[in-house]
Amino acid sequence: MPELRKDPVVGRWVIISADRARRPSDFGPEPVRPRLSRCVFCAGNEDKTPPEILAGRAAGGRPDGPGWTFRVVPNKFPALRIEGDLEPSGEGPYDRMNGVGAHEVVIESPDHAATLAAMSVDAVTDVLLAFRERFVDLKKDPRFEYILAFKNHGEAAGASLEHPHSQLIATPIIPIMVAEELAGGAKYYEIKERCVWCDVVREERRGRRRLILDEQGFVAIGPFAPRFPFETWILPTRHRSAFEESGVDELRGLAGILGEFLRRMNRVLNEPAFNFMLHSAPLREPALEHFHWHLEIIPKVTRVAGFEWGSGFFINPVPPEDAAVALRESSGDGGDGAAG
Amino acid sequence: MPELRKDPVVGRWVIISADRARRPSDFGPEPVRPRLSRCVFCAGNEDKTPPEILAGRAAGGRPDGPGWTFRVVPNKFPALRIEGDLEPSGEGPYDRMNGVGAHEVVIESPDHAATLAAMSVDAVTDVLLAFRERFVDLKKDPRFEYILAFKNHGEAAGASLEHPHSQLIATPIIPIMVAEELAGGAKYYEIKERCVWCDVVREERRGRRRLILDEQGFVAIGPFAPRFPFETWILPTRHRSAFEESGVDELRGLAGILGEFLRRMNRVLNEPAFNFMLHSAPLREPALEHFHWHLEIIPKVTRVAGFEWGSGFFINPVPPEDAAVALRESSGDGGDGAAG
Repeated sequence: MPELRKDPVVGRWVIISADRARRPSDFGPEPVRPRLSRCVFCAGNEDKTPPEILAGRAAGGRPDGPGWTFRVVPNKFPALRIEGDLEPSGEGPYDRMNGVGAHEVVIESPDHAATLAAMSVDAVTDVLLAFRERFVDLKKDPRFEYILAFKNHGEAAGASLEHPHSQLIATPIIPIMVAEELAGGAKYYEIKERCVWCDVVREERRGRRRLILDEQGFVAIGPFAPRFPFETWILPTRHRSAFEESGVDELRGLAGILGEFLRRMNRVLNEPAFNFMLHSAPLREPALEHFHWHLEIIPKVTRVAGFEWGSGFFINPVPPEDAAVALRESSGDGGDGAAG
Repeated sequence: MPELRKDPVVGRWVIISADRARRPSDFGPEPVRPRLSRCVFCAGNEDKTPPEILAGRAAGGRPDGPGWTFRVVPNKFPALRIEGDLEPSGEGPYDRMNGVGAHEVVIESPDHAATLAAMSVDAVTDVLLAFRERFVDLKKDPRFEYILAFKNHGEAAGASLEHPHSQLIATPIIPIMVAEELAGGAKYYEIKERCVWCDVVREERRGRRRLILDEQGFVAIGPFAPRFPFETWILPTRHRSAFEESGVDELRGLAGILGEFLRRMNRVLNEPAFNFMLHSAPLREPALEHFHWHLEIIPKVTRVAGFEWGSGFFINPVPPEDAAVALRESSGDGGDGAAG
């Protein structure tokens, strides 16, 4: 019997329809692997990107020169532009404003074939520290209300370049999905006087039905009402609303659990395309008791169709309990050159 | 300069980023064309589907026998099941209920290679009349609050079978996207005492900036803040909240404008995959002054990526004004065997 499940934060219903389920091996026809050997993001092509904003150069060296481990550069084709003011205006019954914002690319490695799953914990920690540093810097711009850090890996997940990279977009408006989480978290807090994500973490650590990993101050869990098969959330076990307040040790813990999760996902789903999205508190908020930052990871193994676009209901053929069993049982040792 | 635009109904912001724009011919690498010549939905294979619920047989004939022009059958792999009660239950902090509902398939033609774009107005009208008849019948079941009629055409749009078909899913909950439209429409009505969709229709007929077609009591328009390139809404020009209250002549008008729009879309975008979703009022509502039924059509020419999944902001590289020009200028005459 299919089941309707409600997300405890935003109240979104999903349909878990295990009758339509396939085995994990039925997903992901083609593993995501690089087809090129070099591209504009590769070492040696530093002049093919806009000038770098930030980079990792342990041995020193000049900006936009060689010897880097990661680089942050402006997106050459930005969705939003850094210049100008918002200038809200109307057109008949409609509202618009200038598309002011920042759009940056974090090149995660000089190596075209690297992946977060196979990179060392140190290298992934550096990428997360770069996120943090860009959050802190972009926050100084009073025009921005929010920063979304995200990753598209593989063409099916919307990546247009295969070189390992993630992105940051700073927006002058709090995105609706974050606003919904904030509203849901506030409502829950009003009734229970507890953070809903803290309650979710407690419940999953207690019942272990959807717990995938629990290590170094973080958990990876399948949400109770996932939109997508194998959707996974990584949350700090200690309450915190703003990602950029995380210390180096915490980000090292995040790097560890993220790499471990991605290696397990790759084994279970045959190196699928995926997205991740970091939900942190809006930039202008003080520390919030009712919001808890987290990373949402969605392997791209099914297609979104008319029912989802028309209703907002998602049909998910894999119960998160089954996904958690498969991911827990997939050992994290060896296999794909994982270091650290 | 990119632009932020707000949907006047649901308040969703989108980013219109024409700097990243491509020409229409850059979209849709492969036209959607059938690869098989026959399937389980084809004439002669009536015994391969569950027994039919409704069919068009001008010359008479027995159910599940030959001689039909369209058939409605239960989905063999339903997302929701017709048997049982809702039985809401909890699990720790979570809510769930049985996945009760109806999931039906409307086989639009006995011909595997037919399309709504190429079918006669009479044949498309029959399909729409089938939608209406199923709405009226399913409405009698007190467990259902909503029916979403939708279509997935082409693999990229989530279609698993290529034979021309659409689907109906009756749900025990009002889908969140419809709830948001209802709330937005009610809020607008409270302030203006007018239907927001009626105002949109008036604005587009007056300014013609995003008007694509205006014929037989319907308009096809590009919404001001479209999520997707070439997203198009078809609305009756006369206010009505419930699709199933439409008369035969109205549905004939809808069949005409839908076919004409699809032929233009096929020419401009090279026969893309697409979805459509019919938004009608919830089943238990009386006629509503603040809701206006409409059909949303989304050609599937871009991929949804991490930014969209994480923010709810959509980045659309094609301003709807440009899409409307391309679709207006694409003549509807001849070309692909369009009849009627």
